[in-house]
Amino acid sequence: MTSLRFVFLFLLTSFSALAQKDYKLWLQYSTVANASISKEYKDNLKGIVVLGNSETIKITQKELKTGFLEMLENVPEIKSELKGENNLIIGSRSNLNSEIRKELQSDFDKINDEGFLIKTISFKNKKQIIIAGKTDVAVLYGVFNFLRLMQTNKSIQNLHVADSPKTNIRILNHWDNLDRTVERGYAGFSLWNWQKLPDFIDQRYIDYARANASIGINGTVLTNVNANALILMPQYLEKVEALANVFRPYGIKVYLTARFSAPIEIGKLRTADPKDPEVINWWKNKAAEIYQRIPDFGGFLVKANSEGQPGPQNYGRDHVDGANMLADAVAPFKGIVMWRAFVYSEHDANDRAKQAYAEFQPYDGKFIENVIVQVKNGAIDFQPREPFHPLFGAMPKTPLMMEFQITQEYLGFSTHLVFLPKLFQEVLESDTYQKGKGSTVAKVIDGTLYQNKLTGIAGVSNIGNDLNWTGHPFAQANWYGFGRLAWNPYLDSETIADEWLRCTFSNDEHFIKPVKKMMIDSREAVVNYMTPLGLHHIMDTGHHYGPGPWVSDLSRPEWNPTYYHKADKNGIGFDRSKSGTNAVSQYAPEMAKVFNNLETCPEKDLLWFHHVSWDYKLKNGKTLWNGLALKYQEGVNQVAEMQKVWNKAEKYVDIERFNEVKMLLEMQQKEAKWWRDACLLYFQQFSGKELPSGVEKPTETLEYFKSLKFPFAPGNG
Amino acid sequence: MTSLRFVFLFLLTSFSALAQKDYKLWLQYSTVANASISKEYKDNLKGIVVLGNSETIKITQKELKTGFLEMLENVPEIKSELKGENNLIIGSRSNLNSEIRKELQSDFDKINDEGFLIKTISFKNKKQIIIAGKTDVAVLYGVFNFLRLMQTNKSIQNLHVADSPKTNIRILNHWDNLDRTVERGYAGFSLWNWQKLPDFIDQRYIDYARANASIGINGTVLTNVNANALILMPQYLEKVEALANVFRPYGIKVYLTARFSAPIEIGKLRTADPKDPEVINWWKNKAAEIYQRIPDFGGFLVKANSEGQPGPQNYGRDHVDGANMLADAVAPFKGIVMWRAFVYSEHDANDRAKQAYAEFQPYDGKFIENVIVQVKNGAIDFQPREPFHPLFGAMPKTPLMMEFQITQEYLGFSTHLVFLPKLFQEVLESDTYQKGKGSTVAKVIDGTLYQNKLTGIAGVSNIGNDLNWTGHPFAQANWYGFGRLAWNPYLDSETIADEWLRCTFSNDEHFIKPVKKMMIDSREAVVNYMTPLGLHHIMDTGHHYGPGPWVSDLSRPEWNPTYYHKADKNGIGFDRSKSGTNAVSQYAPEMAKVFNNLETCPEKDLLWFHHVSWDYKLKNGKTLWNGLALKYQEGVNQVAEMQKVWNKAEKYVDIERFNEVKMLLEMQQKEAKWWRDACLLYFQQFSGKELPSGVEKPTETLEYFKSLKFPFAPGNG
Repeated sequence: MTSLRFVFLFLLTSFSALAQKDYKLWLQYSTVANASISKEYKDNLKGIVVLGNSETIKITQKELKTGFLEMLENVPEIKSELKGENNLIIGSRSNLNSEIRKELQSDFDKINDEGFLIKTISFKNKKQIIIAGKTDVAVLYGVFNFLRLMQTNKSIQNLHVADSPKTNIRILNHWDNLDRTVERGYAGFSLWNWQKLPDFIDQRYIDYARANASIGINGTVLTNVNANALILMPQYLEKVEALANVFRPYGIKVYLTARFSAPIEIGKLRTADPKDPEVINWWKNKAAEIYQRIPDFGGFLVKANSEGQPGPQNYGRDHVDGANMLADAVAPFKGIVMWRAFVYSEHDANDRAKQAYAEFQPYDGKFIENVIVQVKNGAIDFQPREPFHPLFGAMPKTPLMMEFQITQEYLGFSTHLVFLPKLFQEVLESDTYQKGKGSTVAKVIDGTLYQNKLTGIAGVSNIGNDLNWTGHPFAQANWYGFGRLAWNPYLDSETIADEWLRCTFSNDEHFIKPVKKMMIDSREAVVNYMTPLGLHHIMDTGHHYGPGPWVSDLSRPEWNPTYYHKADKNGIGFDRSKSGTNAVSQYAPEMAKVFNNLETCPEKDLLWFHHVSWDYKLKNGKTLWNGLALKYQEGVNQVAEMQKVWNKAEKYVDIERFNEVKMLLEMQQKEAKWWRDACLLYFQQFSGKELPSGVEKPTETLEYFKSLKFPFAPGNG
Repeated sequence: MTSLRFVFLFLLTSFSALAQKDYKLWLQYSTVANASISKEYKDNLKGIVVLGNSETIKITQKELKTGFLEMLENVPEIKSELKGENNLIIGSRSNLNSEIRKELQSDFDKINDEGFLIKTISFKNKKQIIIAGKTDVAVLYGVFNFLRLMQTNKSIQNLHVADSPKTNIRILNHWDNLDRTVERGYAGFSLWNWQKLPDFIDQRYIDYARANASIGINGTVLTNVNANALILMPQYLEKVEALANVFRPYGIKVYLTARFSAPIEIGKLRTADPKDPEVINWWKNKAAEIYQRIPDFGGFLVKANSEGQPGPQNYGRDHVDGANMLADAVAPFKGIVMWRAFVYSEHDANDRAKQAYAEFQPYDGKFIENVIVQVKNGAIDFQPREPFHPLFGAMPKTPLMMEFQITQEYLGFSTHLVFLPKLFQEVLESDTYQKGKGSTVAKVIDGTLYQNKLTGIAGVSNIGNDLNWTGHPFAQANWYGFGRLAWNPYLDSETIADEWLRCTFSNDEHFIKPVKKMMIDSREAVVNYMTPLGLHHIMDTGHHYGPGPWVSDLSRPEWNPTYYHKADKNGIGFDRSKSGTNAVSQYAPEMAKVFNNLETCPEKDLLWFHHVSWDYKLKNGKTLWNGLALKYQEGVNQVAEMQKVWNKAEKYVDIERFNEVKMLLEMQQKEAKWWRDACLLYFQQFSGKELPSGVEKPTETLEYFKSLKFPFAPGNG
């Protein structure tokens, strides 16, 4: 009977944990299963000394207790003074014992205000582990890092870590509307319950701040870039203030989107002209009002004169006028303005990919010092793959921040498992050649290429009020990975996947190895089944759900997929070479040359830069048509492989998350086939060729795929 | 050191339980703290024998294991055959051992198909507890009931329970739109993630079904009564089917709202005339299509010719024509039609309260047998207090089902703690006198007054995707209490509060006694600070958030608060007596007489039925003005008292839920004052009198209160 009962208890434990695990993200703090590692931890952690008493330090202490209790099932003795050996000593520099401070002096010199030290020292001949930083938030970062070492079962003997974030602004952009819909949000609705704020503090606000702090995110833009001026009214500012108060001890600043026409809409002025003295004054007063409530308010994010948003051009002014006027208003309070370079106009039908560069590059050096220009990773719009944006490296006198999209607007919503750090890494590693070889995008972003003081990485959030925060359990890895790369843009995505899997699921190598590979491969899979070989922007209209390469009737030419793929009898692809729109010329000569030449252009970007004959021979010897079709099939096959891998992972994962991922992978498989079939049937009309062997027959007709309608697809707000 | 460590562990346990407790509703299954009770349970439960292998029985078994593991920290031996004593034997009648079946024969005769038995018997001279029913779902109900006995620490020796639901249809009405907004929803957004259905089964669907089954709810209308015809398209029906499959083993049927104009909107017919053969045929085919997918589909809920919804009157037909046509379509499949009596017209400016009765009462006996007319509890619209709807008891030949509103559209959204079973009980206990004294509303609803076969109670759901399901932790009690009253409309609300508190928080009498009183008093509190003495419909427009007695400019007269309170120099109140609109005549003569006479009319309904002079002397000797003002103050004071009670409950409740309720009570206190001040300042313009002593001075001016705007208040869909 005993063994039977044991089985039941085992099953029940996972049942009773329902819903909880999903919610805990990468902070599972699972009990350390390996006895010798557990013993090492216990032996090395006999007491905890926490110095300081700020809110941040209290949070740090709570986190330690939670982590220890859950991972080691006991909490080391908490001491108020240092005695005995094998203690964990935690505190900011100013709170440390002067002898320890002296001992760490050279290490402190290596870190910045947000950086931390984790170091094993011998103090009065006794072994101690110190976690320290110059600020309390840095200490919190150090503690989260230390707990991650334990979560990933690393040795904690002889530690010597000195780590600082490489960018200043590590920020989430929430495209959250005041009615709680989230533009391009696929994980439910906005976390911000404006109705109950400021008086009701939802536990999720705290847990959100905690999760962000654990990966070093230090800012959040609460509102959609397609902005509503009401957020700047006192009625809402008191709610923003309440959130800022929750986030502050976690080192997170709040930012808002500023609707350029706010002086008219809520200020009752007749204009929003950035040169108008009343307008200038209105914004100065508004900034003062905000800082009165929120002394560490981060500043504004602005989308202006883009996709219908108002901006300085409405008054015959330019982006510099607009950005500098707003930056002047927040400058006295050390606020910043993040001004988006995502602009394109229907009045320039030439090549949308060229417009942001054409418009912004000439402004280099004209923005005042608290303006940073926020540039999407590619020149179109968060496609499964884009060549890096030509603005990177091209504005040496202007700080540029990266805008990644964590939410999967064009990558399968929250249904598809796509590990985005692989995409982010590809962009960050790209060499712009703007200051010679090695001028990577990462060096532009972290300011080392041109010695910018203001640096940052923004991620368009994939967070909503779903129980598991992100809709797909693996989409949590994209939030995690974004944070890690914002901290250190040189991190390898494989390292990130490894950390995340261990913290989130299991340290078992039999689980880690195949599932990590699955994650790493997942990004190329989505490119293959959606937009292989440089195709882009061929999704369906509005909601962007599923394929729509046939769409050609939208009012603005550059909204139509046909504008981007230009498939015809002769071939497919957008000619951006010198014989085409010459978009290649926006890159440094070295890259322009590579992209311009059909033979040297990387095949992954082929149809981005070239209109290529259906019979063109790819490097693998296949014709373009056959190669394209086989790529679509490869994507489908890769998803099938992901399913196989996941099915074998069952015993390492709680049943709830296992089933969630299993169901989602089945959907992904269906939708990968939908993409393949719809795109190939459509393009086949032009190529006039049969599908090569190895490519499965379409499951439905082209007419069927064209008839599909999704009236309430989420995120289309 | 030991004691200090103990304290830390204690604190941490509650910290690590964050978010989990809120989610678990009344199924906390907390460890039985009382050692002697725990011993009694263990002594009486040495083994479990579960008979049968349906999905429902598997769920039953899982529930038992969860319950035992959490409450007793161990699971009794699971046996496949009956041996030894002190077993818990579970199964439907047909699966029971024939000797036990015989032993229980007379008990089985007392229950219906959904009823259950829990009985201690001596079988072969050994003591056993049997949980049985005629169906597997009845067994599940029995098990939930047994677990509730344990949750509430009742003795399980010598059990003899035979309990059947008194109504057939115990159903939630979700006013959920296809875009996941919820009309009058204040707990986030719709649980139904249409985008990911049918392939992705959210864990919440399962947990929702489980929670409902635990209180006997057996039906759910998935969609808003302000209906969208798209739900009837195959694209959505396959999603509905997936939900039906999840809910089926929990004994829950799905229903949909039928948009009357669907034959035009999705059927491409030119009319939706219920007498048109093509229309009749369209609905028959649609019903067949639905039942093909969902053989136990429950049927349709219809809002027709009400507040802009299409209906039979658009074609010169009446409600009977419309309802019977739809009922004919679902009759072959044993489906039903719930046809709402909530109708009023702007073309009849006389008295909105009279219209439903005037329109529907003459139809008595004309509906076919699978139609049930769904009537709101009062004649206006879910106000904090309304006299019972005059239709109850007035249609002897027509089954009437109750429509309660669990979501707090007019009772403080999900911010205010209001225990609604107290309100529901007041309505159910009301004597209609339609068949002499004792003709209570409950007897109309459960069919005993007029021997109706079809009976039911509907509750407009307060459930959303908030972590805690209902926004306010105590709003869970309203979902729970609705289910309990739907099962047994004669239950006392105090019993319900007692059960719910024990299952949800604690069995400690020091907690139960004051908090139960707080719950019971909470309903009168909200009446006092919003609409005392029979006032009604004086909330602000559209979103219904906060007071708006001054609103008088809406296009339809009966949408204006001024239409309802009719305050003037002479007094206040709506004259529905014989000298007024004579709405009293819609009640049985006994009640009409009581309501008609100013002296006998209950003061709680005074201004509902009478326009009363400001100087009228109330039973307590105060003038109406003074009495009204003191009632508003009393409501505010009652909330202050609730805060006191809750603050003392801190040690019995986990910190997260304690803080949530504390914050919400602070908001409720603020908003109670807002109601008091706004209403009294407004009415004072007419009374011209000073506030009596004991009433606090207003915190703001009337102009201030009138200036408040809530552009994104939730639920205004």
